[in-house]
Amino acid sequence: MSTTTKRAYNFNAGPSALPLEVLEKAQQELVNFNNTGMALMEMSHRSKDYEAVHNDAIARLKALFAIPDNYEVLFLQGGASLQFTMIPMNFLTQDKTASYVLTGSWSEKALKEAKLFGQTAQAASTKENNYRNIPSLEEIQFNETDAYVHITSNNTIYGTQWKNFPTTGEVPLVADMSSDILSKPVDVSKFGIIYAGAQKNLGPSGVTVVIIRKDLLASANTNIPTMLKYTTHSESNSLYNTPPTFGIYMLGEVLKWVEGKGGLEAIEKQNEEKAKVIYDAIDNSNGFYYGHATKESRSLMNITFRVADEELEKQFLAEAKAAGFVGLNGHRSVGGCRASTYNAVPFEACLALANFMVDFQKKNQ
Amino acid sequence: MSTTTKRAYNFNAGPSALPLEVLEKAQQELVNFNNTGMALMEMSHRSKDYEAVHNDAIARLKALFAIPDNYEVLFLQGGASLQFTMIPMNFLTQDKTASYVLTGSWSEKALKEAKLFGQTAQAASTKENNYRNIPSLEEIQFNETDAYVHITSNNTIYGTQWKNFPTTGEVPLVADMSSDILSKPVDVSKFGIIYAGAQKNLGPSGVTVVIIRKDLLASANTNIPTMLKYTTHSESNSLYNTPPTFGIYMLGEVLKWVEGKGGLEAIEKQNEEKAKVIYDAIDNSNGFYYGHATKESRSLMNITFRVADEELEKQFLAEAKAAGFVGLNGHRSVGGCRASTYNAVPFEACLALANFMVDFQKKNQ
Ligand SMILES: Cc1ncc(COP(=O)(O)O)c(C=O)c1O
Ligand SMILES: Cc1ncc(COP(=O)(O)O)c(C=O)c1O
Ligand SMILES: [Mg+2]
Ligand SMILES: [Mg+2]
Ligand SMILES: [Mg+2]
Ligand SMILES: [Mg+2]
Repeated sequence: MSTTTKRAYNFNAGPSALPLEVLEKAQQELVNFNNTGMALMEMSHRSKDYEAVHNDAIARLKALFAIPDNYEVLFLQGGASLQFTMIPMNFLTQDKTASYVLTGSWSEKALKEAKLFGQTAQAASTKENNYRNIPSLEEIQFNETDAYVHITSNNTIYGTQWKNFPTTGEVPLVADMSSDILSKPVDVSKFGIIYAGAQKNLGPSGVTVVIIRKDLLASANTNIPTMLKYTTHSESNSLYNTPPTFGIYMLGEVLKWVEGKGGLEAIEKQNEEKAKVIYDAIDNSNGFYYGHATKESRSLMNITFRVADEELEKQFLAEAKAAGFVGLNGHRSVGGCRASTYNAVPFEACLALANFMVDFQKKNQ
Repeated sequence: MSTTTKRAYNFNAGPSALPLEVLEKAQQELVNFNNTGMALMEMSHRSKDYEAVHNDAIARLKALFAIPDNYEVLFLQGGASLQFTMIPMNFLTQDKTASYVLTGSWSEKALKEAKLFGQTAQAASTKENNYRNIPSLEEIQFNETDAYVHITSNNTIYGTQWKNFPTTGEVPLVADMSSDILSKPVDVSKFGIIYAGAQKNLGPSGVTVVIIRKDLLASANTNIPTMLKYTTHSESNSLYNTPPTFGIYMLGEVLKWVEGKGGLEAIEKQNEEKAKVIYDAIDNSNGFYYGHATKESRSLMNITFRVADEELEKQFLAEAKAAGFVGLNGHRSVGGCRASTYNAVPFEACLALANFMVDFQKKNQ
């Protein structure tokens, strides 16, 4: 029904491209799941059919991301933005300090929410450099008594990405991986908590993934609302209340697709190749295009760039849109151009964009 | 592709039956929405295509439910369970009292969360009667200085439903309508806040609808986390962070379907007819079956009943399951049988169940 459809070149920053194979499978089984005479969306979250989907998604995420046994995987709601609150609500107290590394707007927002619950400190910030880079690991300052150190592993808006993660010893390292989770292998054991809104690499919006070290659960604050306690969800296998069942199903299908692609090492290689063709178009343009991020901090997920001439930039965005490229406008807070090349964006789309950029330059410089 | 599929008799309590027409339409446009070459799930929540879906769903809900202009409609995440917390967090303070009418497990859970934020009182309770009934309006006690009075309009587990709502004057009346919203017309102007998880009458799980009177927004507590403030969402048209876009789209499609059925008066009539055939099977059984709720408090959405003989009850549930009836087991906390007859459950399914009940009685009494 849909295989003959022309797909858009989808560079949206999130919600963003999903694998066509996953969408087609979801379409096929949307009305009648597993020959039950029901859609998955119509099933009780306490039914065997749904629980199989739920547990399968958790198991696949653990396997794919090599999550050690001393971690729990939770499926929550509210987006990464609710995690900005849940983390300090569970782990910060008035007599403690939480240290935040500021690498963009999302880190700033995360920090802001923590201030309601205790002391906060800046472990580092690259704001003065307009968030063009990730700080070096040596720059990061925190105290051994800190409640945690928080980082944003990939900065969706500014287009920067951590290449190595700090070692924080006894202090839990907490990472917002919303925009690069599952784009490459990561040593999960370095982290106390990893969280991500699903709507970039994992699935549709409406599901939030939290990966949390079990010993932290035991130390969490207790006098807080039930739904905002991590233990509520860890103790009920993320079935304390009704979960977003269809979103979790889609997430599971995306994980199967990643497995089919060869897992995270293969995905990483593809992501490198995809980003390279676009960064090459920028780097070989003699300044016609220029990147926002410094080269060492460049993101493989969100490629932020400008057309040097402002008028030409408007023309570039308009012509790209007319040519079928979707989502190339930079975030409304910073302007410019941004190509988000998440897992499900095919190499062909990136190549088409790179070619378009080269052509546009030829015609207009 | 699916019209020839036999549909299950779906009596799930939530997530629950959705209209077949809605599922088929969603299936058809799942991969390629509006000929954009993208799925709706792949679109930015800031895109024109998505915003049209979002605003259309809000407008249809306002029109269908006759929501006055001095109310906002919000689409949130976290389920009704997160509202148990957000309501007192926004509207209760340590020097105030919130009064709760206890009519079942969900009211109890709502009350429990309020205790973290201020004083609470029982405005009435039918717990002593095993939640078989809704209190009479005269029994409800509250103070003119109360922060609000909270009720649960339909008790999903015990199968009772309010037929008339109390008049609370200057004190805002707050209602959890998770399991009967949109099953009949309601005078919204009697309420300060109405909230509901979508997964019964409105759509798939993962969307929470909040209808809130605008003057309350101005009086809400301010020193609380951004994501848990109603004003955050009212000021951004529920687009502060990434909403559950596909769930909101489905909700909009369900609203169109309700319109097509003739709106809430027509839906109410159908719901009455559907419930009647099943209640008749109970009432005409000479005590072979008996209902949990008192007749005056019977729910048109969740029909709770027992087979008088315990062994026969097990056999009834097993045979009903084998005959293709889904979701008839009572909630795990109370046992027995429950048939949830939400808007999307067709009359034919209710008739089939009633016939099955009569046949089972004939064979086994
Ligand atoms: C890095 C990062 N963190 C947090 C968020 C906010 O996520 P959500 O919309 O799920 O709350 C985003 C959204 O784009 C993001 O990119
Ligand atoms: C009346 C009522 N309130 C609240 C809830 C909890 O809803 P959720 O699972 O969306 O948190 C339910 C769930 O069935 C319910 O029936
Ligand atoms: Mg976003
Ligand atoms: Mg950023
Ligand atoms: Mg439920
Ligand atoms: Mg109940």
